[in-house]
Amino acid sequence: MKERNFQQLLDARGRLGKFLCVGLDSEFSRIPLSARTDSIADSIAGFNRAIVEATKDFVCAYKPNVAFYEAYGDEGYSALRRTVLDIHTIVPDVPVILDAKRADIGSTNANYAKMAFEYIQADAITVHPYLGGEALLPFLTRAEKGVIVLCRTSNLGAGEFQDLLVNSEPLYRFVARRVASKWNKNGNCGLVVGATYPDELHEVREIVGDMPILIPGIGAQGGDLQKVVSAGRDSHGRGIILSSSRGILFASDGVDFAEAARRETEKLHTLISQYMRI
Amino acid sequence: MKERNFQQLLDARGRLGKFLCVGLDSEFSRIPLSARTDSIADSIAGFNRAIVEATKDFVCAYKPNVAFYEAYGDEGYSALRRTVLDIHTIVPDVPVILDAKRADIGSTNANYAKMAFEYIQADAITVHPYLGGEALLPFLTRAEKGVIVLCRTSNLGAGEFQDLLVNSEPLYRFVARRVASKWNKNGNCGLVVGATYPDELHEVREIVGDMPILIPGIGAQGGDLQKVVSAGRDSHGRGIILSSSRGILFASDGVDFAEAARRETEKLHTLISQYMRI
Repeated sequence: MKERNFQQLLDARGRLGKFLCVGLDSEFSRIPLSARTDSIADSIAGFNRAIVEATKDFVCAYKPNVAFYEAYGDEGYSALRRTVLDIHTIVPDVPVILDAKRADIGSTNANYAKMAFEYIQADAITVHPYLGGEALLPFLTRAEKGVIVLCRTSNLGAGEFQDLLVNSEPLYRFVARRVASKWNKNGNCGLVVGATYPDELHEVREIVGDMPILIPGIGAQGGDLQKVVSAGRDSHGRGIILSSSRGILFASDGVDFAEAARRETEKLHTLISQYMRI
Repeated sequence: MKERNFQQLLDARGRLGKFLCVGLDSEFSRIPLSARTDSIADSIAGFNRAIVEATKDFVCAYKPNVAFYEAYGDEGYSALRRTVLDIHTIVPDVPVILDAKRADIGSTNANYAKMAFEYIQADAITVHPYLGGEALLPFLTRAEKGVIVLCRTSNLGAGEFQDLLVNSEPLYRFVARRVASKWNKNGNCGLVVGATYPDELHEVREIVGDMPILIPGIGAQGGDLQKVVSAGRDSHGRGIILSSSRGILFASDGVDFAEAARRETEKLHTLISQYMRI
């Protein structure tokens, strides 16, 4: 079996016009009662399976955030692994981004890489830049796996350090420049820039060329989304991974949760396709 | 039962002259054959229990690094939880620092806090600063739990971002200043500064007053250790958490691994005590 390659899988989805990522922030306490069983692991994995089946026609990637699984310990971890294997089975051509936001020193990162790429079998992982590229080598040297570096995050207080001026430019731009010019030798890097900051997104796009940018925090608000698509896309009209989580997962808390998720996903996909043509 | 308080537990260990932290980087593949059973979870938990029993007289804290457990999936996670509960049982007055290096946006961090403080039952956690203090509120508002922020890490490439000049001072000093002046309202913050950078450690100590500093990367080399102790201690001659991992855990790969770990721990403790008096 040929090894899965994140960048190739993502490119192929882009050629199909798919740019929407479903964030599987599947917090157990918010899973509809109709999707629950006696087992936390079964409930989370089953809910995710239904969401993936319902949304698979419109997506470029799935992105489980590890925090929502870890909060339920070994059961959550087990559900996370099953979810990723289920995605590989249901839609083998859709890559899985493990939103883990890890980063430690190099020898320790080798263990995080083992977790993400062997145990969980994800195709890409999100990482913190603070320890530098040298520490991230156990990720960066895995040419077939995506390494998506936090650059300008979507939270309100993101600017506390990310906007600090270094060499007359904000730190997040310096990070983008380093990733594009030094860390991307294997062509497997990406960046995270929050949808809440379209101006910064545009600046980052100018720095990084065609590198994939993961953009969390989009909702169904057309106005913002149009601005984000326009600011984020690369010169081929691709390169964006637009991620929505709760608005899709919990579109309904009734027995129709999967249909509601499909409707919400299709709506976002249609809007994105429309804005891509402008 | 009174809730455990990280800062109080750590202070009490300092008053007893204990400043050594054993880093439980208990990678399964390095666990001596004599400590292994058929189960990965049992092997890791059993190895850790033997190490804790052997070293408990000389330590101020234990620090499992999550990466070494996550690499073995749900079994590893289960072993991590059992280890922390074992430590609480064997030495209830010794705090446990979960070396998890987490940080996401606020609503997601609430789940990491649940993982660390409810599921694993750790007393403190290490976190990345890149998203800012606002994102870390779910940790910072837990007044009884320690929040230990990466400042100047021990790795070779730590300076790539941490040494960048912002407002005429390196970023790691700016981070130290923010944590000390803005994030520490509950008196529960600490910082990570690698033992490999004693000059930077001294600068950080001057900025943060009596805040605890977690110092990974010490070995049995007396010279460096003396410099680190002198650079790191606070005005009361305390405030340092000197962490050693592999040198203790894998001091012997034979049946005497626990005795060898005890000897190594006692040796480091004796050296630290000696340097503390200089």
